[in-house]
Amino acid sequence: MLQLVLDPHRPLNRSVYTALREAILERRIAPGSKLPSSRALAADLGVSRNTVLYAYDQLAAEGYVETRVGSGTYVVDSLAGGVPASGRDSRRGDGRRKLSSLGARLARDGSPGRGFGDQRREALRYEFRFAGAGHEQETLNAWARLVGRRARSLSRAPTGYQPPGGSPELREALAGYLARARGLTCRPEQIVVTQGSQQGIDLCLRLLVDPGDRVVVEEPHYAGYGSCLRACGASVVHVPVDAAGMQAELAAELEAAKAVCVTPSHQFPTGAVMPLSRRLLLLDWARQHGTVVLEDDYDGEFRHEGRPIECLHSLDAEGQVIYLGTASRMLFPALRIGWAVVPEDLVDAFQRLKAIADRDTSSLEQLVLADFISGGWLERHVRRARKRYAVRRAAFLEALGRELGTRVELAGVSAGTHALLRIPGLPADRFADLRRACRRRGVGIYSAAQCYARPPECVELLAGYASLPERDLAVGVRKLREALDSLGGG
Amino acid sequence: MLQLVLDPHRPLNRSVYTALREAILERRIAPGSKLPSSRALAADLGVSRNTVLYAYDQLAAEGYVETRVGSGTYVVDSLAGGVPASGRDSRRGDGRRKLSSLGARLARDGSPGRGFGDQRREALRYEFRFAGAGHEQETLNAWARLVGRRARSLSRAPTGYQPPGGSPELREALAGYLARARGLTCRPEQIVVTQGSQQGIDLCLRLLVDPGDRVVVEEPHYAGYGSCLRACGASVVHVPVDAAGMQAELAAELEAAKAVCVTPSHQFPTGAVMPLSRRLLLLDWARQHGTVVLEDDYDGEFRHEGRPIECLHSLDAEGQVIYLGTASRMLFPALRIGWAVVPEDLVDAFQRLKAIADRDTSSLEQLVLADFISGGWLERHVRRARKRYAVRRAAFLEALGRELGTRVELAGVSAGTHALLRIPGLPADRFADLRRACRRRGVGIYSAAQCYARPPECVELLAGYASLPERDLAVGVRKLREALDSLGGG
Repeated sequence: MLQLVLDPHRPLNRSVYTALREAILERRIAPGSKLPSSRALAADLGVSRNTVLYAYDQLAAEGYVETRVGSGTYVVDSLAGGVPASGRDSRRGDGRRKLSSLGARLARDGSPGRGFGDQRREALRYEFRFAGAGHEQETLNAWARLVGRRARSLSRAPTGYQPPGGSPELREALAGYLARARGLTCRPEQIVVTQGSQQGIDLCLRLLVDPGDRVVVEEPHYAGYGSCLRACGASVVHVPVDAAGMQAELAAELEAAKAVCVTPSHQFPTGAVMPLSRRLLLLDWARQHGTVVLEDDYDGEFRHEGRPIECLHSLDAEGQVIYLGTASRMLFPALRIGWAVVPEDLVDAFQRLKAIADRDTSSLEQLVLADFISGGWLERHVRRARKRYAVRRAAFLEALGRELGTRVELAGVSAGTHALLRIPGLPADRFADLRRACRRRGVGIYSAAQCYARPPECVELLAGYASLPERDLAVGVRKLREALDSLGGG
Repeated sequence: MLQLVLDPHRPLNRSVYTALREAILERRIAPGSKLPSSRALAADLGVSRNTVLYAYDQLAAEGYVETRVGSGTYVVDSLAGGVPASGRDSRRGDGRRKLSSLGARLARDGSPGRGFGDQRREALRYEFRFAGAGHEQETLNAWARLVGRRARSLSRAPTGYQPPGGSPELREALAGYLARARGLTCRPEQIVVTQGSQQGIDLCLRLLVDPGDRVVVEEPHYAGYGSCLRACGASVVHVPVDAAGMQAELAAELEAAKAVCVTPSHQFPTGAVMPLSRRLLLLDWARQHGTVVLEDDYDGEFRHEGRPIECLHSLDAEGQVIYLGTASRMLFPALRIGWAVVPEDLVDAFQRLKAIADRDTSSLEQLVLADFISGGWLERHVRRARKRYAVRRAAFLEALGRELGTRVELAGVSAGTHALLRIPGLPADRFADLRRACRRRGVGIYSAAQCYARPPECVELLAGYASLPERDLAVGVRKLREALDSLGGG
C-alpha cells in the first residue's frame, strides 16, 4: 500500500507522512477507508510508533484524515476532485489558462529580456558594454562604507516602509542635487523615488496610455521604451533623430499624442544634443495638445564638449514635463534607484501607482544614496568620473581613427559614456559573424539594432568605452579591427 | 534690461548667465537683437569680462544666442513659442493633460496610499501595528554583518544587472528553503524575485486581467489586492470567508474567472486556515475553468497551534497556482524582496513583465538574502521568532481576556503575528474617536475596515502583537480598555 521512500534530507517521520499523503492523494488509500493502527503500521514499516503518530497527527491537522474516538483513523470522504494520479509530475499548465492582452503579447514575444540587450555576464576581457559605466574604486569604497553604516543603524532601529514617494532624506538630497547639477528646481515632494528609470518609464506610461493611444518616440530610441510601449498597447509614432536630436518640427505636425518620450540632453543612442529652438518648439506643441513630455535625462552629467545643457524641465512653465533620472548610470547598474520629478497635480496619482506596483523601493539603498549625496560623494564622483571618461574617450577615438579610419562612422561622442559606431561596409545580417569573431578575440560587442523600429541596413554598434582602461581600449579596438578584417568586410 | 540677482549658492558667472537667459526667454531681450559687447556688459554690471564671456559661451552652447564673426552676439530668431512670461511660477498643469483610464481612476482615488493602511511613522509606545513584525536583535545583527560583507565585495567587483528572474544564488537558496519549510517543490528557474509580494500581485494581475475580467477575492482581504484590482479594472467577485477560510463552495458556483486570490495558510485578515477539502475543491474548479490561483503565503511560517499546513502549490498538479511569498513579513518591512513561483509555461512572460516593470530588484539585498538563507540564518530566525511570538501571543490573549473579556471577539490567533479584534458594542463610525482616545494614551491602533468591500458595522481592529514585549502588551491592552471605557461604548 505505502511506498516509503527515505529522504536523507528529511527526518524519518516526515518521510512517513509524505508517503501516506501521496497514497491518499493518489487514491491508493481510498477515501473513507480506515488506516492501520499506528502500532501496526510502525511494525510494518520498521519505524517507531512515535514516527507514525507524528504522521497521523499532521495528516489530521491538514484535513486528510480524521480520528474517530474509540474507532481509529479514517481517510476523509470529502476530498472533492482530488489530485489525478497521472500528470503529477507535470507543471506545464493545461493551455486553457487565459492571459490578459498584455500577458498574451508577452507570451508571444521573443526570448526573455528581449529589448534589453544582451546583458548576460561573460568573462570577456575587452567589453564594450554600454550598461557598465566605469567603476571608480574610491566611489565604491565610500559606497560600501556608507552601506555598512546604514545597515548597522538599521539593525539598531529597523525602519518600516518609507512614506509614499520615497525616503524624505533622499528626496531632499535629490532636490538639492538636481538644482545644483541640472538647473532643475522642484520641491522634494514632487520627487517620486523609483526602482531605476525603467520603473519611472513604466509608471508614466501606465498613468498616461490606454491601448491605442498615440505616443511619440525617437527613432532610434532606448529599447526599454519599446517593451513598455508594447506592454501598454500604445500606438507608437517614431520621429527620426538627426544631429540635433528628435526632429521636433515633424512631431509638431501631429494632431496630438498622449506622451512624447525624449532624451534631449544626450539622445539615446545617437548622442545628439537638442538645441534650444527645438526644445521650445516641442514644449509649445505639447502644451497645445495636453501632451506629456517624458524627459529621460539618463546621463546628462557626463558631457565632454561644452557645458551640460539645462534640461527641458527647467524650460517648462506649465507642468507638461515629467523628468526621469537614475543613479544606475552614474554609479553602477546593480543600484536600482531612479527618480521621477512629477508635476504637482500628478504627484498623488503617481505615488498611488508606485504603491500598487511595489509599495516601496529598498529603504537601505535609498538611505545610503541620501547619505552619499548629502556627504558630497556623488558630485565628487561625477567630477572624477568625468575626467577619467574624457581620457578614455580620447583614447577610444584615437584608437578608432588609427585602426578603422573611414571604415566606421562615429556619432554621439560629445557626451555620455558610449558611442554609436556605424560600419557602412558590413551588412546588418553579418552582426552575428562579427560578434563571434570578436568573442574569439576576447572582445564583447553589442548591436544597436534593438534601438530601432526599422534597424539600419549595416551593422551599428552601441559601444560603451567608460569601463575600460586606456590600454585595453587601444587593444580592444585593434582586435575589433582584426575581427572585421577576418570577415573580409567593413 | 537685465535683472541680475546674485545668489550666494551660485558662482557669479552662473548668476549672469541665468539673468540673461531669463531675459531672453521672457522676451525682455527681443529675438534677433544684438547683445551688448562682453566688455560693455561687464562694465555695466560691474563684473569681470570673463564672467560675461562664460555666460555668452554657455548661452551659445545651449542655442539661445549665436556669434557672428566680426559682428557680435545675437539672440537667435527661432525661439518658436518661447516661454510665456506669465505663469512661469506655476507648475500645476493646464488641465488639458489626458490620463489613461488607470491614471484617471488613480487621480480620482482618495488620499495617497489609500488601501495601504496608515503606515506613517509615529512615536507611540504601544503600537499594535501589523506591518512591524518583531525584530530579533540577533537576526538584525547577522543581517547587518552580511550586508557589510556583500557591500565590500560589490565594491571590489560590482555586479551589473542580474539575469531575468533574479539572482541565481538567491533563487537556488529559495528553492531549498521553500522545499524544507513549506513542502513546495520547484526548479529555481521557476522563481521570479520580486520587489516584495506587492509587486508579485501587480505583475500577476497585469499578466492575467484585462478591464472587465472577473477575479475572485476573499472578503475580507488584504487591501493591497483592492488597489491592484481597481488599477487593472477587474470585475471583482468577493467570496466571504468563514472559520475555514474562503468558502470555496461558493466560488465553485461561478462560471469562470481569470484568477482567484487566496491566503489559504492563514487567511488575511481573519486568520482562518483552509482545510484540505476546500483546497482541493478550489483547485478542481480552477482547473476546470482555466482559472489561475494566486496563493499568497505571506506568513505561513508562523503557526502556533498544530504544524504548518502545506501550501496549495504542492497540491497543484497542473500548474494552476502562482505562489507568492515575501521576506518582509519574516524579517522587516523595509526589506523589499518577495518571490513568485510560476508555472513553467508562464515563466518567460513573467520575467519579461518584471523586466518592463523595473528591470531588476536590488542586487545587494538579493545577494544578502541568499547568504542569509544558505547560512541557515533565516530558519534560525524563524524558529527563534516563532517561540518569541508564541510567548507574546499568550500574553496578548491573557491581557485581552482579563481587560476586555466578552467586550471583544477574537479571530485569527492560531497563526501569524496579528489578531482580528471585533468590538461588537462600538459602531464603526466611532473608530476615529477610539483611535484618538488610544493615541492620547500612547496606543496605536489600526482599523480592519480597509480589508472589506463592505466594512462591518462595528469597529474591527487589525492588531499586530509581535513587535511588543509582554509587559507592553499587557499595559497596551489595559490602555486600550481605558480608551474604550472613556467612550462609554464597547
